[in-house]
Amino acid sequence: MLSVDLNSDLGEGFGAYSCGDDEAMLGIVTSANVACGLHAGDPEIMAKAFTVARERGVAIGAHPGFPDLWGFGRRRIPFSTGEIERLVAYQLGAAQALAAYAGHRISYVKPHGALGNIACEERPVADAIARAVKAVDPSLALLATALTAQVAAGEAAGLTTYQEIFADRGYTDEGLLIARSKPGAMITDHEEAAARVIEMVTEGVIVTATGKRLPTPVRSICVHGDSSHAVTMARHVRKALERAGITLAAFA
Amino acid sequence: MLSVDLNSDLGEGFGAYSCGDDEAMLGIVTSANVACGLHAGDPEIMAKAFTVARERGVAIGAHPGFPDLWGFGRRRIPFSTGEIERLVAYQLGAAQALAAYAGHRISYVKPHGALGNIACEERPVADAIARAVKAVDPSLALLATALTAQVAAGEAAGLTTYQEIFADRGYTDEGLLIARSKPGAMITDHEEAAARVIEMVTEGVIVTATGKRLPTPVRSICVHGDSSHAVTMARHVRKALERAGITLAAFA
Amino acid sequence: MLSVDLNSDLGEGFGAYSCGDDEAMLGIVTSANVACGLHAGDPEIMAKAFTVARERGVAIGAHPGFPDLWGFGRRRIPFSTGEIERLVAYQLGAAQALAAYAGHRISYVKPHGALGNIACEERPVADAIARAVKAVDPSLALLATALTAQVAAGEAAGLTTYQEIFADRGYTDEGLLIARSKPGAMITDHEEAAARVIEMVTEGVIVTATGKRLPTPVRSICVHGDSSHAVTMARHVRKALERAGITLAAFA
Amino acid sequence: MLSVDLNSDLGEGFGAYSCGDDEAMLGIVTSANVACGLHAGDPEIMAKAFTVARERGVAIGAHPGFPDLWGFGRRRIPFSTGEIERLVAYQLGAAQALAAYAGHRISYVKPHGALGNIACEERPVADAIARAVKAVDPSLALLATALTAQVAAGEAAGLTTYQEIFADRGYTDEGLLIARSKPGAMITDHEEAAARVIEMVTEGVIVTATGKRLPTPVRSICVHGDSSHAVTMARHVRKALERAGITLAAFA
Repeated sequence: MLSVDLNSDLGEGFGAYSCGDDEAMLGIVTSANVACGLHAGDPEIMAKAFTVARERGVAIGAHPGFPDLWGFGRRRIPFSTGEIERLVAYQLGAAQALAAYAGHRISYVKPHGALGNIACEERPVADAIARAVKAVDPSLALLATALTAQVAAGEAAGLTTYQEIFADRGYTDEGLLIARSKPGAMITDHEEAAARVIEMVTEGVIVTATGKRLPTPVRSICVHGDSSHAVTMARHVRKALERAGITLAAFA
Repeated sequence: MLSVDLNSDLGEGFGAYSCGDDEAMLGIVTSANVACGLHAGDPEIMAKAFTVARERGVAIGAHPGFPDLWGFGRRRIPFSTGEIERLVAYQLGAAQALAAYAGHRISYVKPHGALGNIACEERPVADAIARAVKAVDPSLALLATALTAQVAAGEAAGLTTYQEIFADRGYTDEGLLIARSKPGAMITDHEEAAARVIEMVTEGVIVTATGKRLPTPVRSICVHGDSSHAVTMARHVRKALERAGITLAAFA
Repeated sequence: MLSVDLNSDLGEGFGAYSCGDDEAMLGIVTSANVACGLHAGDPEIMAKAFTVARERGVAIGAHPGFPDLWGFGRRRIPFSTGEIERLVAYQLGAAQALAAYAGHRISYVKPHGALGNIACEERPVADAIARAVKAVDPSLALLATALTAQVAAGEAAGLTTYQEIFADRGYTDEGLLIARSKPGAMITDHEEAAARVIEMVTEGVIVTATGKRLPTPVRSICVHGDSSHAVTMARHVRKALERAGITLAAFA
Repeated sequence: MLSVDLNSDLGEGFGAYSCGDDEAMLGIVTSANVACGLHAGDPEIMAKAFTVARERGVAIGAHPGFPDLWGFGRRRIPFSTGEIERLVAYQLGAAQALAAYAGHRISYVKPHGALGNIACEERPVADAIARAVKAVDPSLALLATALTAQVAAGEAAGLTTYQEIFADRGYTDEGLLIARSKPGAMITDHEEAAARVIEMVTEGVIVTATGKRLPTPVRSICVHGDSSHAVTMARHVRKALERAGITLAAFA
């Protein structure tokens, strides 16, 4: 029986600021990527997210980013690979400790925003992330953007590496996300998104905007979590997967 | 044979800012309390301190403080005990991960600055710290200011709890540190500091400013690390202890 | 003809985080208290708020708070009065410069959150704020919580000082806000809030929860800006004031 | 009679961290570039520097940088030109207000670190800085690195623009600073630095490493302020200039 994971970025508020509906998303996803306090999140929000995830049986991952709260981790700050190793290790440890505090356990790591984007494109950065994870806890999995340097780096480091696709983003024929500034970047129609995701999971391919099919072991689907619209999309995708007979289950 | 630990706060720089001579102190102390990035320290400085400590055979402790870089963790910010639990857990985990990254291992926790001072006076705050440590890793020890609420809280929580005295501070007849604004607060003479410390370690007492002797299982001596003067004092205290036949060894 | 000002805290987002509906509120209020980047706000948000305020003919005030983004300026951090002077001056200058950049002009200062609350209760803190304002620009007005130390300090410093009441908060017989934990603290009924505000503005009194009337030169009404509910309340209060023949106009 | 300004970056500490010997440097330079709190400095340090500068008759400039305390403003963070305008305006205003508070007055602006370096190379960034200065206070001067885009941008914006050279850095034949990684980048010999500076000021040229002479109206000499070595160098350069009959005076 076919099974897939549904993941989303959560715990992205800060202090009095909220971001997205964590409670609702934790009722839909099977894995939650939780911000670690440097680009978003704080100890209160992390502990809360881990606690609710435990109660709902949702797996949790550390979601480290650049130390850039103002930029929400989206600015490409020129850190060295060594600095990136330490930044990832720091955040991963903080998340592990608060997970233990909340009675849960971090089972994977997924880099956020600019850090994740650079790691898709630049193998040395992807290697730095993989080295940090391995040094801190080699039993952790890596949740990698499909067909990118993240995958190669995770596998080369000997980490259990799972590939994810995005439910609401179009793909180029090279398997990359279509830039947000270009047509076809965002898939806003729920039906279209769900149908496409089912096809990709069922057949083990990424379907590009031109209809090309790139063989990919799709183990997780990423849905956005930072708007009310996002909750609706996530719920729709989940229901469509279930109706198609696909089991929703955390990969880790 | 009598043995005692010598500890100091280290890794208290931030980015381009340095604070104290970590390299020198790591050649003198047997335990290093390393700042965890919220009141001082950053991932680079932490990893560096842990690496050098490993090379020198120095034990390492997490030294969590309030998230107050501007105030160096010395401002008494009114956090709830719940917030303190999460703040301590967050920093402890970050330190554990960077220690693993550096090939070393955190063996104890000692609260910093205002957090430590409040925990000396207020049992609920001391309990919160102890709960955080226990939740994250109950095998960790607590390094507590002698004769304070920190000791009681650590023991009540079932943590291995060690008591420390200060080499350069005078004590009241209640076993508290004499306030810095009052005469006798600071002991600046190296000979006097060393003689007093030897007496306290050898006889298992805190000697107060009036000469009173308060029975205390002294397991560690804290020396300051944030000035060149401090290095001289630390070196002097260490040599005097060795001349007195006392072994210097980490408690943990 | 009777005239009163309607003010609200705005520009309280940070980076990707939004807080309240600034656009909507700037169509309702006559004065906007804009956060200055230390407890909320950033240069982008400040410049945007000042620009829209200029376009809508809304007066702008600097709304300085404690440097506590995590606590949204609500934590009572023990700063000295000297530190408070410098913190207020810093934020006031930053706001003045961005106002000039946006083609507008800061006309008053109102302290935020914990800083404002302490300044209501402690005259030395209120004096520190008044000194900072006077040193930076003595032509600026002070928007003070009615019947508090803020008023006395502003007047003693020779600043033009205006008193404000809260549209949705109950008052004790001493003219203080009823603590949020107690019954009568919040007035959630729009009709009740509007009727009460009209009475207080028209008769120049604060009406307490027991019906006592404390003579007060009410020059401004504060409405909250940080929820969609708040916009509705603000709109309702404004319309009721207009129907009662009271002109809405900035005090400054 | 020939006159030149001697400037240095000051106020670069943060909270408990100090950086350089501001007191000593304020007895040597004629202009102090003071950090504005985002890459270094804080309201306490700024007010202190402005007060001592006033007492010593030293002119003061705002020294804005990127919001990157961890990186000391040295990281090239990809901000848009619009964001740079607002960042500069914010810091400039904060500095002006604290200068007024300290009884002094900001007379010029000089960008720091990565912001300054990018503005040397990229005209749009230099234009953004000039626009911010002009919008906040067009009477302020710009202190620009000689022969760079900073100069052209300042002049095009109609700002009074002064050019500075570095006492301890070698120049390429294009008038650029030799990269720190290359031979000839740093001039560590006091005599050599002083002789070279006197030649450049007296003859109105930049002397390059190969001996080429590039005509430049040198109005200020920048000396470093962040080490004890720096104080010695600054003192030496000042004395040599005085012995050569050159008056030391602020340009602004």
